[in-house]
Amino acid sequence: MECFDTHMHSEGKGITELKAMAERGIKRAVSCSYYPIPPSASETLIDEFRKLETFEVERGERVGMKIYPAIGIHPRCIPPNYEKALRYVEENATIIGEIGLETASELEMEVLKAQLEIAKRKDIPCVIHTPKKNKLEVTEKILKILEDLNFPEDLAIIDHATEQTVPIIIDKGYWIGLTVQKGKITREEVARIVERFGFERFLLNSDTGFNDEEMFTTAETVEFLLEKFDRSDVEKLAFKNAEKVFKV
Amino acid sequence: MECFDTHMHSEGKGITELKAMAERGIKRAVSCSYYPIPPSASETLIDEFRKLETFEVERGERVGMKIYPAIGIHPRCIPPNYEKALRYVEENATIIGEIGLETASELEMEVLKAQLEIAKRKDIPCVIHTPKKNKLEVTEKILKILEDLNFPEDLAIIDHATEQTVPIIIDKGYWIGLTVQKGKITREEVARIVERFGFERFLLNSDTGFNDEEMFTTAETVEFLLEKFDRSDVEKLAFKNAEKVFKV
Repeated sequence: MECFDTHMHSEGKGITELKAMAERGIKRAVSCSYYPIPPSASETLIDEFRKLETFEVERGERVGMKIYPAIGIHPRCIPPNYEKALRYVEENATIIGEIGLETASELEMEVLKAQLEIAKRKDIPCVIHTPKKNKLEVTEKILKILEDLNFPEDLAIIDHATEQTVPIIIDKGYWIGLTVQKGKITREEVARIVERFGFERFLLNSDTGFNDEEMFTTAETVEFLLEKFDRSDVEKLAFKNAEKVFKV
Repeated sequence: MECFDTHMHSEGKGITELKAMAERGIKRAVSCSYYPIPPSASETLIDEFRKLETFEVERGERVGMKIYPAIGIHPRCIPPNYEKALRYVEENATIIGEIGLETASELEMEVLKAQLEIAKRKDIPCVIHTPKKNKLEVTEKILKILEDLNFPEDLAIIDHATEQTVPIIIDKGYWIGLTVQKGKITREEVARIVERFGFERFLLNSDTGFNDEEMFTTAETVEFLLEKFDRSDVEKLAFKNAEKVFKV
């Protein structure tokens, strides 16, 4: 079954890896902005956004993968003069990501809120990172920020959700990203989650990037789910929900 | 035989590709600075240099490849305020690269000269790009610049040399980079070159980066040469000359 990886970092993948992913059935992907070291200035991020929007999309085309670039300021990548990068996001983004909270510092909250306000004003879907450490607590903080902004449910993807955080997210009506990757969740956990909560609000992704050897986890999970569930349900997780949220 | 790839772009390779290269015998590599779209500011390059010096070196360590970062302003990557990037190069470089000429414009010549002056002043080896288009003519311009600067022979690697350009470089006493990659030269051409000019002044590299599927060409060429030449000679091309020029 064709597969839509809703959150990966194509900049960290080589051309033979992207090609292998496309050959494995991962024909569409959202490639999220991320800079592997803390950037010293907005200019670095803006050039990285431009690279994602042009060079990375072309790399995808070369190997048969449609890449949708998501641009935004990751909580680990906030430069001193971040307002300039924010203006670029406001003027250019079609998907905003990867944004979110890591430590939930004042600065991170301020940058997240600013980006969510842009998304709400311009009707743009957002890929929102939740951290490994204090996941439940920080996810609650993100949900509070979204509620305070009266943020449209269909524009928020709360990503890297777990069996612990899904229950508190699903009640709010946002999209939920399930990241199958070492250190995140397994395909067995995905199966348990959709068995309990249904297929309607979930998106599948690998988050594969600069240091991950695993890159086929979305395709593998889809195959695993096909053994247990109806094809029409699995399709929602494989690509149909992604088409809805990203309007493609 | 263990192999030293004297010019590649690890930033364009995924972790499974770097791992495969290391497993194929490419245990050491110079990873050269390059930004795949024209950077809008020096800050972008400086952060890319910092990424090469830290994050890329660590990625190499993860897979058993010793990465030596080369930093410098590529002729296709000259930002408007390039002087700031130049200062970073002066303060931090242990290898300068990839520098050189592409179209040989006034600006490119100015930036190349400035970097060569730093290299001479600080005794740093330089990886110097020659273009595909007008290779002979532009190589001659580079040689003229080096002569005018009275540039130390042992600090200059004239890269992407061909059977056409080797004869005019070898007389000057500089190091010569042979790039085995689609669109550059073949291993058969390498064999012909070393048969005619000896092994003393040549370095082998792949230039593999963001869009190249070929990444084992240095190892493959070494194996090919071992069928025709003495092991002690092939070792010079495989790693011994590289150890000399990069002082490692």
